[in-house]
Amino acid sequence: VKQLQHWIDSHFPSILEDLFTFYRFKTISADPTLHSEMKRCAQWLSDKMRALGCHAELIQTKGAPLVYAEDLSAGPRAPTLLIYGHYDVQPTDPLELWESDPFEPVERNGNVFCRGAQDDKGQIYYAIAALAALRGVQRSLPVNLKFCIEGEEEFGSNGLAAILPTLKKKLCADYLLIVDFGIPDAKTPAITLGARGIITLDLLLRGSCRDLHSGEFGGIAYNPNRALAELLAHMWDARGRIAIPHFYDDVEELSSSEQAQFTGWDETGIHDAHIHAFANPEGSSLFASNRLLPSLEINGIAGGYAGPGFKTVIPAEARAKISSRLVPRQDPEKMGHLISDFLKTRVRKGIEVKVTLHHGGKPFRAAPDSRLAQAAARAYEELFNKPCQKMLCGASIPIVADLQTIAGASVVGIGYGLPSDNIHAPNEHFGLDRFKQGILTVARLIEHLG
Amino acid sequence: VKQLQHWIDSHFPSILEDLFTFYRFKTISADPTLHSEMKRCAQWLSDKMRALGCHAELIQTKGAPLVYAEDLSAGPRAPTLLIYGHYDVQPTDPLELWESDPFEPVERNGNVFCRGAQDDKGQIYYAIAALAALRGVQRSLPVNLKFCIEGEEEFGSNGLAAILPTLKKKLCADYLLIVDFGIPDAKTPAITLGARGIITLDLLLRGSCRDLHSGEFGGIAYNPNRALAELLAHMWDARGRIAIPHFYDDVEELSSSEQAQFTGWDETGIHDAHIHAFANPEGSSLFASNRLLPSLEINGIAGGYAGPGFKTVIPAEARAKISSRLVPRQDPEKMGHLISDFLKTRVRKGIEVKVTLHHGGKPFRAAPDSRLAQAAARAYEELFNKPCQKMLCGASIPIVADLQTIAGASVVGIGYGLPSDNIHAPNEHFGLDRFKQGILTVARLIEHLG
Repeated sequence: VKQLQHWIDSHFPSILEDLFTFYRFKTISADPTLHSEMKRCAQWLSDKMRALGCHAELIQTKGAPLVYAEDLSAGPRAPTLLIYGHYDVQPTDPLELWESDPFEPVERNGNVFCRGAQDDKGQIYYAIAALAALRGVQRSLPVNLKFCIEGEEEFGSNGLAAILPTLKKKLCADYLLIVDFGIPDAKTPAITLGARGIITLDLLLRGSCRDLHSGEFGGIAYNPNRALAELLAHMWDARGRIAIPHFYDDVEELSSSEQAQFTGWDETGIHDAHIHAFANPEGSSLFASNRLLPSLEINGIAGGYAGPGFKTVIPAEARAKISSRLVPRQDPEKMGHLISDFLKTRVRKGIEVKVTLHHGGKPFRAAPDSRLAQAAARAYEELFNKPCQKMLCGASIPIVADLQTIAGASVVGIGYGLPSDNIHAPNEHFGLDRFKQGILTVARLIEHLG
Repeated sequence: VKQLQHWIDSHFPSILEDLFTFYRFKTISADPTLHSEMKRCAQWLSDKMRALGCHAELIQTKGAPLVYAEDLSAGPRAPTLLIYGHYDVQPTDPLELWESDPFEPVERNGNVFCRGAQDDKGQIYYAIAALAALRGVQRSLPVNLKFCIEGEEEFGSNGLAAILPTLKKKLCADYLLIVDFGIPDAKTPAITLGARGIITLDLLLRGSCRDLHSGEFGGIAYNPNRALAELLAHMWDARGRIAIPHFYDDVEELSSSEQAQFTGWDETGIHDAHIHAFANPEGSSLFASNRLLPSLEINGIAGGYAGPGFKTVIPAEARAKISSRLVPRQDPEKMGHLISDFLKTRVRKGIEVKVTLHHGGKPFRAAPDSRLAQAAARAYEELFNKPCQKMLCGASIPIVADLQTIAGASVVGIGYGLPSDNIHAPNEHFGLDRFKQGILTVARLIEHLG
């Protein structure tokens, strides 16, 4: 450990320099105009892996390329660890709320601020730096290493999902480590044993063939903004439960002892974000509502004119983006159709409705006692000198369930994210101390796995 | 009439040239960056009035300047007609739906397409051209003429409203002609005997101090988009009536004979706009709902990310722009507070709510048998050779009621707008035949008034 720590400390400036270069690529997977930037970043990343002695390649998908790298020097008898992360990031708007350029990393008070600071560039890069550290102290690797770093996690992982069946041999592994998770607070280590699935959809309501003057047509035309409000409001019942028929049918009931194993829960993030109105249905705790139950969110709404000044318009259209987080046994496609059917049948007659379902992702659940889970917990406990918690994640990594099946591996999630990191939001940041802990944790996990 | 018609026909090309110059000024009153463009347009307009022999001046307001012009050559014993219109226009978005540049007028099939083609540049300019025509045929004016052409009608007329008390002497008149209305269809003449008032407000809901990740906080944070949908949906009851307490308290009930006088009603515009879902409450006709009853519209909604791709965000804020059209006896300020109180008290606890009420405008109603109404009807009937209808307007011209009080005048509305002109919408247009009819109608109205 000391040797590793020393190597990391003495090489930290050059590691940060590379990390900052990685941050500067504008890898917003949702923005089709940035396709060449995705390629440049993937190329840079594979060059970096190659410099660390890996065999590395770019694998084309219908979207952003996948960076695949392997170091099989441990030999065919040693087990294989597949590490998953992503180099793409979320869009940056509302841009005006950023205190500094989202693609120019800036260090303030021990945190680096930029889009992707944590999610997932900062996290996957400490896993890469862990390989550099192990190589640096000239240890032979006790396990074969494979890296699968994709460029569309924030956009549904469609590209990777489509070619996954063709990658069975390449991704075959004993262990699958997902480096895209968090810890409940800065002082408490935790591994992640599951994440929710997700389905997303676009809803478009149309009330007329053109925007209308709200005086000329006010009281005549049923306004699509009103149709949208009334339709979306019906998605919940008076007790705060989701009112879409059959929505909870497939939800797995956990026994209280099963629930009790998940100890990593901290409400600091809730207080930090100044949240005073809550979405947990009557009779469910915040923990259950975020980790054990499916949720339904309106991620975006737009209709008419909402800019400065005023425009007295009845818009032709109103739209919403809706997502649902899913728990084990809920199938994304089935759930997407339930939501879509509800929206189509409940909208006011005469309003044209269009629902576009996107590719979803299944939830995953990991075995708490696998060798990988034990190695990860040991690496954390060594560093923090306290027991490692077991967490569930309310968020989603859409590809994990399928990746696990293809790899034939046992899975576990690790990470150093905190709820206060502002991921997917303005002023995303990551603590450099946590970044450094990440390097050591992954390096030691690899050693413990051997 | 023939002499006037001949003059108009032979001077039409140069009238159009001036009209197109007028159209090209980007006079969007809602856009504060266009302030100097407003001034340039007002200056151009007052120069034009001066060239027609008027005394003309720009009157500063806290917003866009007012163009005031007068021709008092009829002498102190002749009655005075005050003509009101506006040179400002609505914003142009969604810009991508325009088939040509909104500020470069283009003629297609006898219509001119541009922002303001009809509302109100096209309409007020035929009133100006009418003065040119009367001067052109060298008739002495039988009435004194005053023009009040403001630059903020589409933005609440705040500037004019604030200085109105100081303009009592200038605007003093016997008759007030509002040139900003329409006819039910291209073959039916009509005068307008009333318009609805309006109150507008901005609603902002805030659920947290920053945007949140919908996985991390989904099921925990009550989403402001959901809060907005639920709050707005409650503004109507199951019968489609507005559910805000006391909303209908001050609505004047018209007897059926009073209702029967308003004959100008045509549903072509409804069919042309492909409207298949309607907003009239149970038990009220479309006519009553648009002309005799107040209406409530959500003119804009926005929250979270609604652009291309997807962003799994729970936004910190969601917002809406809401307006209500008011009928006689309803006071804009009182109604604004009713709506505001409803929104503030009905929103889910824990959600921060901010309502910004804007300056409203009172409804107006004109006497159907004034000398002005008769002169206007006669001018129309002469041209169309059929009876002139009497209309109410569902839209609003916020300043009219106050203007009428200050001027001490009887009022009537005229115009050549059609519901299919796409005012306040992409591809606004105006028929050049109607523009020409407008010149003749105003010129003859002035003669009949003498």
